[in-house]
Amino acid sequence: MKIEARLEELGFVLPAPLALPAGARLPFPWVRVHGKRVFISGHGPQQPDGSLAGPFGKVGAEVSPEQAYESARLVALAILGSLKRELGDLDRVTAWLRVFGMINSTPDFTMQPAVINGFSDVILSVYGETAGAHARSAVGMASLPFSIPVEIEAEVEIDG
Amino acid sequence: MKIEARLEELGFVLPAPLALPAGARLPFPWVRVHGKRVFISGHGPQQPDGSLAGPFGKVGAEVSPEQAYESARLVALAILGSLKRELGDLDRVTAWLRVFGMINSTPDFTMQPAVINGFSDVILSVYGETAGAHARSAVGMASLPFSIPVEIEAEVEIDG
Amino acid sequence: MKIEARLEELGFVLPAPLALPAGARLPFPWVRVHGKRVFISGHGPQQPDGSLAGPFGKVGAEVSPEQAYESARLVALAILGSLKRELGDLDRVTAWLRVFGMINSTPDFTMQPAVINGFSDVILSVYGETAGAHARSAVGMASLPFSIPVEIEAEVEIDG
Repeated sequence: MKIEARLEELGFVLPAPLALPAGARLPFPWVRVHGKRVFISGHGPQQPDGSLAGPFGKVGAEVSPEQAYESARLVALAILGSLKRELGDLDRVTAWLRVFGMINSTPDFTMQPAVINGFSDVILSVYGETAGAHARSAVGMASLPFSIPVEIEAEVEIDG
Repeated sequence: MKIEARLEELGFVLPAPLALPAGARLPFPWVRVHGKRVFISGHGPQQPDGSLAGPFGKVGAEVSPEQAYESARLVALAILGSLKRELGDLDRVTAWLRVFGMINSTPDFTMQPAVINGFSDVILSVYGETAGAHARSAVGMASLPFSIPVEIEAEVEIDG
Repeated sequence: MKIEARLEELGFVLPAPLALPAGARLPFPWVRVHGKRVFISGHGPQQPDGSLAGPFGKVGAEVSPEQAYESARLVALAILGSLKRELGDLDRVTAWLRVFGMINSTPDFTMQPAVINGFSDVILSVYGETAGAHARSAVGMASLPFSIPVEIEAEVEIDG
């Protein structure tokens, strides 16, 4: 349980499963495992109790880039929480592959990479430079569900 | 031909290949098969004759969430039509893996998941909870080609 | 070195590695190789010296569709440059699989496919219709990093 120990060392706490916003129905799994391939659904930032974490709104307007960096860190922890529930042990993740970072952006916000660094920094600090390395895009969306400022989907690999 | 029988049972009709809008040139396949991996290009909603299906415009303005849910259902049928033409038999799809749902959104529309449920509901009703399960994101785009309200790309697996 | 010869024949020059805009930190690789799978991070258009290439801004406003087509061609060359540096030899790419084309769009710009054709045309002219074929989406983003007009991520396969 090396990754768990690393999380504890860094003081990272993984949130509870997403507490669905009122009226929402999400007929898909947060993590889809198929052989060694693991597809991670789009996650938002969560509070420790599993509810969505604010601030809500658009980066470049209601949400500052610094706040959005923190939101992206929370998305990383939410995804690690989903992976742990699905896989049992986070050590099973042998390689991060693709990270797609989506920022709820005003039309003139252009610092998407600095926001998604919050996600990459968590993953690299936990998994290290080899297993944690990932191809990445960081781009501006017109809007995101429930007005979350950041949503991230990803693909990782596990040992057969 | 279990999937075909299921489609008939549900009354689902797969549309003809996309009738390209005037002036458009699309130099790529709707489905890219490589070994067991099948990549599905971004599809919009189609009418049975293959032309793009309205309503057109932005969800949150000209297009209601309920209308967009129906559009997402039509996208599912369009994708199943492309898969059938490429694979010959829809039973060859053994697992849905990743679904990326894009909604042509106003900046303040935030119910993207409810829209893309139209797609997930069709896939789950046809393929069932095991093969049909998929990781998913549902997000708001600034604009989509030809003003379609919904576009979806996906990856599935087939038997070798 | 068939692909290199083809590039020379076509007069295509691959740019130097991206010269990072001032203040930017990008803690991820441009290309993530894992076994036979190769994930390509989101790339923008680059000048031969590696700096980002204009015009900058939104397609449908400051940037014309024709200019954006040229930007998409430059993205293809930037990606080929990254692949060459990572793989050593561009002949190792045996199949293009997925191309995700993102256009910095005004809310009413709807010709995204015509823009991303600039990318597809380069890849098909270099790799041919078989290895170069790719599933594709071309969609409108609210904003992109550093105001680039086009960003593209992709997945390709290499020989084991």
